[in-house]
Amino acid sequence: MHKMRPLYRSLSLFFPRTRRRVAEPWCKCISNTSAFNAAAAPADLNRFVARTKTCGELRSANVGQEVTLCGWIQYQRQGQFVVLRDFQGLTQIIIPQDEAASHLKKVLCNTPVESVVRVTGTVVSRPPGQTNPRMPTGEIEVKAETVEVFNTCKKLPFEMKDFIKKNEALRMQYRYLDLRSAQLQHNLRLRSQMVMRMREYLCNCYGFVDVETPTLFKKTPGGAKEFVVPSHEPGKFYSLPQSPQQFKQLLMIGGLDRYFQVARCYRDEGSKPDRQPEFTQIDIEMSFVDQAGIRALIEGLLQYSWPEEKGSLETPFPSISYSEALATYGTDKPDTRFGMKIVDISDVFRNVEAGFLQKSLSEPEGTVKAICIPQGARHLQKKDLESLNELAKSQFNQAIFHFILRSDGSVKSQLSKYLNEEQKLELIRTVQANTEDLVLVAAGGHEKVCSALGKVRLVSADLLEERGVPLRDSSAFHFLWVTDFPLFLLKEENPNELESAHHPFTAPLPSDEHLLYTDPAKVCGQHYDLVLNGSEVGGGSIRIHNAKQQRFILESVLKEDSELLSHLLEALDSGAPPHGGIALGLDRLICLIVGAPSIRDVIAFPKSFKGRDLMSNAPDYVAPEELEPYHVQVMWPSAEAEASAN
Amino acid sequence: MHKMRPLYRSLSLFFPRTRRRVAEPWCKCISNTSAFNAAAAPADLNRFVARTKTCGELRSANVGQEVTLCGWIQYQRQGQFVVLRDFQGLTQIIIPQDEAASHLKKVLCNTPVESVVRVTGTVVSRPPGQTNPRMPTGEIEVKAETVEVFNTCKKLPFEMKDFIKKNEALRMQYRYLDLRSAQLQHNLRLRSQMVMRMREYLCNCYGFVDVETPTLFKKTPGGAKEFVVPSHEPGKFYSLPQSPQQFKQLLMIGGLDRYFQVARCYRDEGSKPDRQPEFTQIDIEMSFVDQAGIRALIEGLLQYSWPEEKGSLETPFPSISYSEALATYGTDKPDTRFGMKIVDISDVFRNVEAGFLQKSLSEPEGTVKAICIPQGARHLQKKDLESLNELAKSQFNQAIFHFILRSDGSVKSQLSKYLNEEQKLELIRTVQANTEDLVLVAAGGHEKVCSALGKVRLVSADLLEERGVPLRDSSAFHFLWVTDFPLFLLKEENPNELESAHHPFTAPLPSDEHLLYTDPAKVCGQHYDLVLNGSEVGGGSIRIHNAKQQRFILESVLKEDSELLSHLLEALDSGAPPHGGIALGLDRLICLIVGAPSIRDVIAFPKSFKGRDLMSNAPDYVAPEELEPYHVQVMWPSAEAEASAN
Repeated sequence: MHKMRPLYRSLSLFFPRTRRRVAEPWCKCISNTSAFNAAAAPADLNRFVARTKTCGELRSANVGQEVTLCGWIQYQRQGQFVVLRDFQGLTQIIIPQDEAASHLKKVLCNTPVESVVRVTGTVVSRPPGQTNPRMPTGEIEVKAETVEVFNTCKKLPFEMKDFIKKNEALRMQYRYLDLRSAQLQHNLRLRSQMVMRMREYLCNCYGFVDVETPTLFKKTPGGAKEFVVPSHEPGKFYSLPQSPQQFKQLLMIGGLDRYFQVARCYRDEGSKPDRQPEFTQIDIEMSFVDQAGIRALIEGLLQYSWPEEKGSLETPFPSISYSEALATYGTDKPDTRFGMKIVDISDVFRNVEAGFLQKSLSEPEGTVKAICIPQGARHLQKKDLESLNELAKSQFNQAIFHFILRSDGSVKSQLSKYLNEEQKLELIRTVQANTEDLVLVAAGGHEKVCSALGKVRLVSADLLEERGVPLRDSSAFHFLWVTDFPLFLLKEENPNELESAHHPFTAPLPSDEHLLYTDPAKVCGQHYDLVLNGSEVGGGSIRIHNAKQQRFILESVLKEDSELLSHLLEALDSGAPPHGGIALGLDRLICLIVGAPSIRDVIAFPKSFKGRDLMSNAPDYVAPEELEPYHVQVMWPSAEAEASAN
Repeated sequence: MHKMRPLYRSLSLFFPRTRRRVAEPWCKCISNTSAFNAAAAPADLNRFVARTKTCGELRSANVGQEVTLCGWIQYQRQGQFVVLRDFQGLTQIIIPQDEAASHLKKVLCNTPVESVVRVTGTVVSRPPGQTNPRMPTGEIEVKAETVEVFNTCKKLPFEMKDFIKKNEALRMQYRYLDLRSAQLQHNLRLRSQMVMRMREYLCNCYGFVDVETPTLFKKTPGGAKEFVVPSHEPGKFYSLPQSPQQFKQLLMIGGLDRYFQVARCYRDEGSKPDRQPEFTQIDIEMSFVDQAGIRALIEGLLQYSWPEEKGSLETPFPSISYSEALATYGTDKPDTRFGMKIVDISDVFRNVEAGFLQKSLSEPEGTVKAICIPQGARHLQKKDLESLNELAKSQFNQAIFHFILRSDGSVKSQLSKYLNEEQKLELIRTVQANTEDLVLVAAGGHEKVCSALGKVRLVSADLLEERGVPLRDSSAFHFLWVTDFPLFLLKEENPNELESAHHPFTAPLPSDEHLLYTDPAKVCGQHYDLVLNGSEVGGGSIRIHNAKQQRFILESVLKEDSELLSHLLEALDSGAPPHGGIALGLDRLICLIVGAPSIRDVIAFPKSFKGRDLMSNAPDYVAPEELEPYHVQVMWPSAEAEASAN
């Protein structure tokens, strides 16, 4: 369900000021703060256009001025007032009541709301007692002298004030109306500002070169989920790439040294919730860099571009290894805003005489683990426990047991009969449980147990917050680096084969290189993910810059056709510098910063779940003759096939 | 033919300085020059990486410092010197000749050129007489202490120094090697810098919002040349739009007020020379603006972002109407760097008794016009005249006559016999010819005559410059606005029907609005083109913001299905502000600024004439099963069809 959003009521006045903050003391470019900080003038919003002021800027100091405002009629009142709205705010227009102004009154009162007008008049103080302290322009009003109607709003599909109550599909169909909301305007403006500051940091402070790379490219080996674009050559297609990965590496081999791009990328995932078929990433690559260099760069980047009203960021960001993240949070993207960490309690159960527990402990990597939910016994009910059990069972095939620490100190559990008092006390001590806490326990293989408890941890947190127990500070931003991922994973469909955990260009950890040839599944890679509040907002790696190693991984480890990457392999043999990079998911990052429920709220014209543009009705049918030049034809599902499917 | 380019020899040291210049006195944001101008620090290029200095920055002041450089081995000399190259320049490394350094010497002398190494050493002054004033680092050298080889360059496809002699296809196949050239590095860095400054101007100075619009969209009505992208819904396709036109207008209706985007656009034109299937435009839209506002904005934008080394721009740019451009230069994109304007000489021939001339003059808009080529009689030969005639004949079906003003004052011409002395003198006076000038004359309908002479004017200029007569200053930048275009053109295939001269959203000139309903072919539109040195680098218009007018033009004038634009028509009825915008063709603009022979020289990874990526070999075949999810199949040209075609 979409959160309700205030529409117009509190028009945010967030607006571009050329504002920069000091990132780190070593940042030469911005250590000269006087150049950047002090004198930053606000943007001139009234140059080039038919207004002299925006609807958000008039104050008492402007009283007596003749002004021209352009905007939308927000509402009309008693034939005396009209409130005019633009992107920057609201201004009250007062209509003269004398006979000479009767035309003016007629126009201003009879033009429908949401019509666009230009009003010229004089700024006057509001009479005593009529100022509005909640309105930035609430000290003044503009006494209208002339009015011109630019565009009369015909009947809208619904009343604007009801708009937020409409479903999202309707809001997407009339996106141009939704865009008038204070919230969407704020989101898009914040996004634009933040990207601008990122560019200043990369381009001006550190000499990165903004290079545009092609989006009509060639299918990546193993790259499923790529849209195809038919060409004029029969049977040949371009692909819309998921990232500029190959190009950025080739730019380093071409000696560009420092590349970035706010890159449009494409991924055809059908109808996954909260994914878009096209998305934007801050794409970065550097030569002669290591992991620490990339991390410091990105920490500085975020610090420099972070919106002032969201507080400041502390650097360096904490870091955790993949295996520790799994063991502690049951996931590779831990939400570190709250505790409830996973605790190993195998030792407590080592001597417990319960067959199924001993069986679990004797499995490969067998373990017993727990999370302790503070006050869980008080706030979670039986049906909550059941749904958590069901979740672990259905998603992970994992049983969950619970221990409730009653207020009288006694312990209630399905496992009580197997544990003596000392063991119970040891359990409580190990998980640091207090009275009325709820302890959830799982036994089995390490990865499965951790994953299940990790999921249960997040869902429990949601439940607690629903019950009014504050756990996660919604204004807190917890960045976290996750490192030391395995370089390869066992293929799900064939566990005898390996596939890249991220992509085949990631370099192994130097200390693991020898394992490539003996036990590649054990190799960790120089990959790093950036996580914010439990969501992955970026990822990157130090790349392989050695053709021989790259070829070995492609051919011998991954069993892929290296011919498809022959240009890259040749390039790696032509003077390739060590290099590495990262990509930040811009849509997700902005979404988390503004606290929007969906990335659709930070994109001007998003697509629906099913990849449709509900406003223009794309994708759409195309005449067969328009497909001829591309040598493709539509394969209509035959009536038979359809019938049998139904 | 591709011009020869210096490779490495004069590594340009163009590099980002956070430099801004004052655009116009009224520009509040930048009138505070101290904030922007003075203290702009250079970018820090050595932070985050394994070097302490670039190869371009060491000077005498650094003597005695211990430095670490990373780069490519440019060349080796006499076992004593190695020159190291990176993106910023060249530094000479001196190899110690003592026994203790024998390993160092071996590595530095035996590693192939174009290998990538890291060298640590001490900066020393070059011995007297050995400094190199043509090299920015020519006062010093670095005495090597340690060396590490990062990547050994295997045999290259050709010697790097021969690279520029190779054909463009080979250079595109090994683009990562071509990117190491000083020229391409310079072009890409200048492009990045200029776009950055444009962003500062738009975003920071004038509060524009950078909004990313979708590229997976719906086919535009009448929009041929759009790539299609099959979707998962049978028979339904996205289109890759040629511009964000609809979105930018919807953003204005959504109240965004000022939008810009460095927008990727797509155009499927098959194999047109010097066009790319994907290209970039600086896309701008504003509310409550008129033509003058957009022009002032763009003049300020170019002035603010103009590369310092290219001189300064004077504003406002001159302006010319479409009809005057046609009459004076025979084209809607005049190259105003030189004269040779078209002159109307109808009056000279009004009474000349030559049937074919009188016939031409009695045609609708019949006219006789001329251009005068200074010193043309001296520099152009008979075969040049023949080829000019042939050009006019084949491209415009237009005969060209010539008059040569001999040094003895006599006139030589095929038309001599028809003219008396007084008429000859009047001709010479009218076209202001001097001795040895060549006057080219055409008679017939106005548009055809002007177009032919316009083309002949440009080709003559090329011929004169080939013969060493300077005409166009290659360092001059002549911007020109062309305005008052007709709103509609007669369809070539059916002159009873009208089509949009630019696009159906352009507003008519207010003074012509009444003609819409009576004589639409006579209506001029509020469209404006920006021309630089005879190339169109931008175009835009004030848009229709009235649904009724938009619907009338679509349905009654253009006879198009307005249903396809129902969302836009509905939006225009929901409170649409007056708005207008422009798009600048970034590739062409940068190409003209750096003086590159082709836009391929300002794009990192361009496609060939035929739309191929010669490096990766895109587009490429796709397995049939990969097309299945998209419900399309390839229509192979059957053997029969092929046979009959051959």
